[in-house]
Amino acid sequence: MAFIGGDARQLEVIKSCIEQNAKVSLIGFDNLQSPFSGASNRELTPSLLKTVDMLILPILGTDEEGYVSSIFTTKKLALSEEHIASLTSRAMVYTGIAKSYLKNLCDQHSIRLVELLKRDDVAIYNSIPTVEGALMMAIQHTNITIHGSVCAVLGLGRVGMTLGRTLAALGARVKMGVRRTDQAARSEEMGLSPFFMKDLHRHAGDVDLLFNTVPALVVTAKVLNRMPYSAVIIDLASKPGGVDFTYAEKRGIKALLAPSLPGIVASKTAGRILAQTMTRLMSEELEEEGS
Amino acid sequence: MAFIGGDARQLEVIKSCIEQNAKVSLIGFDNLQSPFSGASNRELTPSLLKTVDMLILPILGTDEEGYVSSIFTTKKLALSEEHIASLTSRAMVYTGIAKSYLKNLCDQHSIRLVELLKRDDVAIYNSIPTVEGALMMAIQHTNITIHGSVCAVLGLGRVGMTLGRTLAALGARVKMGVRRTDQAARSEEMGLSPFFMKDLHRHAGDVDLLFNTVPALVVTAKVLNRMPYSAVIIDLASKPGGVDFTYAEKRGIKALLAPSLPGIVASKTAGRILAQTMTRLMSEELEEEGS
Amino acid sequence: MAFIGGDARQLEVIKSCIEQNAKVSLIGFDNLQSPFSGASNRELTPSLLKTVDMLILPILGTDEEGYVSSIFTTKKLALSEEHIASLTSRAMVYTGIAKSYLKNLCDQHSIRLVELLKRDDVAIYNSIPTVEGALMMAIQHTNITIHGSVCAVLGLGRVGMTLGRTLAALGARVKMGVRRTDQAARSEEMGLSPFFMKDLHRHAGDVDLLFNTVPALVVTAKVLNRMPYSAVIIDLASKPGGVDFTYAEKRGIKALLAPSLPGIVASKTAGRILAQTMTRLMSEELEEEGS
Amino acid sequence: MAFIGGDARQLEVIKSCIEQNAKVSLIGFDNLQSPFSGASNRELTPSLLKTVDMLILPILGTDEEGYVSSIFTTKKLALSEEHIASLTSRAMVYTGIAKSYLKNLCDQHSIRLVELLKRDDVAIYNSIPTVEGALMMAIQHTNITIHGSVCAVLGLGRVGMTLGRTLAALGARVKMGVRRTDQAARSEEMGLSPFFMKDLHRHAGDVDLLFNTVPALVVTAKVLNRMPYSAVIIDLASKPGGVDFTYAEKRGIKALLAPSLPGIVASKTAGRILAQTMTRLMSEELEEEGS
Ligand SMILES: NC(=O)c1ccc[n+]([C@@H]2O[C@H](COP(=O)([O-])OP(=O)(O)OC[C@H]3O[C@@H](n4cnc5c(N)ncnc54)[C@H](OP(=O)(O)O)[C@@H]3O)[C@@H](O)[C@H]2O)c1
Ligand SMILES: NC(=O)c1ccc[n+]([C@@H]2O[C@H](COP(=O)([O-])OP(=O)(O)OC[C@H]3O[C@@H](n4cnc5c(N)ncnc54)[C@H](OP(=O)(O)O)[C@@H]3O)[C@@H](O)[C@H]2O)c1
Ligand SMILES: NC(=O)c1ccc[n+]([C@@H]2O[C@H](COP(=O)([O-])OP(=O)(O)OC[C@H]3O[C@@H](n4cnc5c(N)ncnc54)[C@H](OP(=O)(O)O)[C@@H]3O)[C@@H](O)[C@H]2O)c1
Ligand SMILES: NC(=O)c1ccc[n+]([C@@H]2O[C@H](COP(=O)([O-])OP(=O)(O)OC[C@H]3O[C@@H](n4cnc5c(N)ncnc54)[C@H](OP(=O)(O)O)[C@@H]3O)[C@@H](O)[C@H]2O)c1
Repeated sequence: MAFIGGDARQLEVIKSCIEQNAKVSLIGFDNLQSPFSGASNRELTPSLLKTVDMLILPILGTDEEGYVSSIFTTKKLALSEEHIASLTSRAMVYTGIAKSYLKNLCDQHSIRLVELLKRDDVAIYNSIPTVEGALMMAIQHTNITIHGSVCAVLGLGRVGMTLGRTLAALGARVKMGVRRTDQAARSEEMGLSPFFMKDLHRHAGDVDLLFNTVPALVVTAKVLNRMPYSAVIIDLASKPGGVDFTYAEKRGIKALLAPSLPGIVASKTAGRILAQTMTRLMSEELEEEGS
Repeated sequence: MAFIGGDARQLEVIKSCIEQNAKVSLIGFDNLQSPFSGASNRELTPSLLKTVDMLILPILGTDEEGYVSSIFTTKKLALSEEHIASLTSRAMVYTGIAKSYLKNLCDQHSIRLVELLKRDDVAIYNSIPTVEGALMMAIQHTNITIHGSVCAVLGLGRVGMTLGRTLAALGARVKMGVRRTDQAARSEEMGLSPFFMKDLHRHAGDVDLLFNTVPALVVTAKVLNRMPYSAVIIDLASKPGGVDFTYAEKRGIKALLAPSLPGIVASKTAGRILAQTMTRLMSEELEEEGS
Repeated sequence: MAFIGGDARQLEVIKSCIEQNAKVSLIGFDNLQSPFSGASNRELTPSLLKTVDMLILPILGTDEEGYVSSIFTTKKLALSEEHIASLTSRAMVYTGIAKSYLKNLCDQHSIRLVELLKRDDVAIYNSIPTVEGALMMAIQHTNITIHGSVCAVLGLGRVGMTLGRTLAALGARVKMGVRRTDQAARSEEMGLSPFFMKDLHRHAGDVDLLFNTVPALVVTAKVLNRMPYSAVIIDLASKPGGVDFTYAEKRGIKALLAPSLPGIVASKTAGRILAQTMTRLMSEELEEEGS
Repeated sequence: MAFIGGDARQLEVIKSCIEQNAKVSLIGFDNLQSPFSGASNRELTPSLLKTVDMLILPILGTDEEGYVSSIFTTKKLALSEEHIASLTSRAMVYTGIAKSYLKNLCDQHSIRLVELLKRDDVAIYNSIPTVEGALMMAIQHTNITIHGSVCAVLGLGRVGMTLGRTLAALGARVKMGVRRTDQAARSEEMGLSPFFMKDLHRHAGDVDLLFNTVPALVVTAKVLNRMPYSAVIIDLASKPGGVDFTYAEKRGIKALLAPSLPGIVASKTAGRILAQTMTRLMSEELEEEGS
């Protein structure tokens, strides 16, 4: 098992693998302040990679040139075709999200690639720190309490469900923007008043806080025109978000794009989520082989 | 719009349709104590059916011979091929769940058939009275409180999610039996400790109350052997349920099959769910036609 | 330590005392099906009582003639002045609620008497089975779900707080009748809309379910006149309750007096509450003596 | 009705009084950017005070020399004995908390003085923004999520109850430090594991987050010695708090004193709480006079 580069979150993963008695090689961790006993620092070479069953890249994988970033080394780390080619057929590559560079390489050499952040379970676990980050921002950027406020949440997906549940638990009156009838039913069961996204503008008039999780332009000028000036918008959808930020600014409505909250507010939890998922996947792998 | 037969729940639907100014004919409601103003009692004839856009059967539709049950008449109501054949091509037939007799007839004559209980949204709305019925049974059939008890819920589906959330809200320690990793993540987010169904026997040892929603034999002898004698099992899955009842009895564990709870504990709510869904479907239909 | 009489709940207490290695004598338990190892059956005599530090009576203590009821014997058990007089000055008498007969005797002989049900902690623990009993009745006696219904709870005391929290958790819209401004504030914090009891009649118009915990006639004709016919009233206050039952019946509103719920729906939990409180009090006693 | 000085929160109160058609004089608001229509700017003179029924000071009242702070004027505002003496016997003075200077003056001239922040209802309403401020700090100052963490809350008072409920709703495992058995029972009912404050050191070992609301030195060296280094302490009790901060720093445990959260995180809500309480008190006053 070899780790190439990463940030604080990766340390949690390494720790957890060592605890399970895996043989761990670290590449690009030379500046680590307190080195792990049970892991050895190595160079990124094809001969090393020939021996590993699992190659673990950072959350962001490589860039489009194959460079891997690491906050624990000053050296440059470049993952080349030669490296991937040297992996055995049973090896697996883990990362958070893969750029096409990495995807293509793995494809060409028939190496299995796991993009952890695309997994449903990881997205749900990650929704927890995401929501706590959103709460923090909501508390900071308003002069009212969440309790008693009218909150709109757009999208009852993996983040939206956690967010809606949490805001209601804090005492907000939550309106949930959905696009499917089963989501409307689930909202209602959870005590969140559902409305259909196509009617969003009609529900914007009394909103104190609007949280968007829909990765599409849904908070349009038409919607913003109906919102009170004092409303605050927190956009959680991945860039470029789902809000017409230019128009919001023009209208004087505070709108904030809030990316990467798990790493910001709960790096340790975020690391643990990845570590646990990876170790579970690995032990399943081993089980299957064993059987 | 014509209604053929039904029970108390159907009256809610009829009321709601009349309120929306639909032209309503009632077939098999001659003994209704307080007749609806705005609806006319009619006989089941092909000529009547020629004029209707929507034909609404009871929750259970017809039996395999085409008979429709109605608690509001002493006459026999039989829906024959001739009846279905007389419907126009734009007519729709609504029921809860259709037997193959009805399905085949509609198929043969290209009449659209809507089975309401198979809809995801209806199943979720129905999960609410189902869960309240399960609570009632749990309170009645144990000598402990749900608060502070260890409850296992099998299946994080439409009923299972509502049930898990509700038991936890009442103060139970809930273990949630799942078979997918995303369900495990959602359970954990909701504060319900997940386990995988294949490990059920290992989690049975300290369970006070077990609720099953899985429509497959999952509470086997192996599981029952590990459960405490004082445990109570409430099986919500549709007949024949998911419990080895014979073995449970042999072992002295109280196990109850609990079908049709919505109609039993909240007939009015259950009726309203159907009425609202049907009227929403109808108005969508009209909208589309209009557009 | 001696136990005189009682019902199923008392067995929990006895079991718990034996587990703590107390020397236990049982009076009036001769017909017990499975006798306790570690306890001896004795007669009610002054000489026995001279040796006990704790005398434990059933929940209802004695009647006004000194008779103690026991479901585990056919003999009559009478606690006379002679018995109490024989207790030493450090002995304590425990019961649920004491009639004046018992109070006077203990007073006269300076024997400390603990009425467990009058303790705040016991009342709060007991509120849990009480509320589950109330839920069960609400589910049974309405044809709607608690979820989505409008519930009024009268009195934010020990039972009322548990009840309000629980109904809201089940998805009801809860209105809380209070008489103090701090209770109004706490209700609001908990998501329960407060109103003042003197305005009850003005809040009765849309109530589906009314739960009373106020031990005074508060649900008067004036209030009942404003309530919908379909409303259901569950009166938890101790006899004679807080509802004008005669007027309710006249008006056709279902009103139910619901006494002694903990013993009915959760006898084991109810027994454990008493056992735990008693053993905690005893060990505090011992600690103090030891110090 | 006259207002002397204050900050943003006071504007909410003024707005609310004007809406109720009170005759409002403002003293020390000359620099207000958008003046209120319906209120007149006045000087602080005995002759003005003779005409007012209600004199409203800022949250902090006066200092010990009688100076009143106002962020809306550059002039100095000094409330002297002459001013108080000119109030009529039916006049009332409102403030948040009064220093002895103000208390004495009012006493000597038999003027009724209301300290709003000492009221139970105000303290409970204020607990809501306090708790949201505490959440914000907890999210900011840890690298884990509140969900899944072990939180200790010390004191089940007005703030502690809101805090415990909220943390549990967010998915924390909450331990509640109490000193009364009824509080232990209420904690348990609310799903918060109670322990007695005298045993705090024994419960400190696994705490991720400790929130203190007890205004006494309870988080002593003995307690801190047992806490993990990674724990974070948020002390909400009024100065000097309840934590041995010097020792915490020595041990390397992050401990934060967090005063005045309502004004910081939700000034508008905090203002509204005071406004609503004051207007309620005033209308009760008027009612009584009227009757
Ligand atoms: N800021 C952060 O720190 C952070 C953290 C995690 C995730 N995210 C981002 O947050 C977003 C949501 O993540 P997620 O995991 O919750 O995704 P998800 O489960 O796919 O949820 C997205 C929701 O948006 C709805 N939706 C999608 N397109 C829509 C459209 N055009 N109109 C109306 N509704 C639409 C979906 O409806 P259907 O269910 O009908 O498809 C779904 O309910 C993503 O962009 C993700 O990258 C941000
Ligand atoms: N008693 C009543 O009054 C009442 C009322 C409503 C419903 N019901 C009945 O309750 C049952 C559940 O209804 P629902 O609407 O919740 O259905 P659902 O949404 O399909 O949920 C069923 C759950 O069981 C799981 N499951 C299915 N087969 C399994 C297997 N072999 N092993 C392990 N898990 C399995 C499913 O997992 P996946 O998600 O992975 O598929 C799903 O989570 C049905 O039988 C329904 O007819 C009864
Ligand atoms: N049915 C059962 O199984 C069962 C089980 C447990 C208890 N109970 C009974 O339920 C009742 C409540 O018990 P509890 O432990 O909750 O008592 P509690 O803590 O004393 O609560 C009673 C509430 O009623 C309010 N109240 C009293 N008199 C009032 C009046 N005249 N007008 C308006 N409000 C009034 C009190 O207000 P303040 O707080 O302002 O005093 C308090 O909030 C008792 O009668 C008890 O015996 C029945
Ligand atoms: N930081 C902020 O922004 C903010 C906002 C609001 C309040 N506060 C401060 O927070 C503190 C709590 O306010 P509160 O309204 O919740 O007060 P509270 O209702 O009086 O609660 C204080 C709690 O501490 C307990 N307690 C007091 N002394 C104790 C001792 N020596 N040992 C053990 N427990 C003790 C009390 O127990 P009993 O119930 O048994 O008396 C009570 O439960 C106050 O200092 C207040 O000024 C700060």
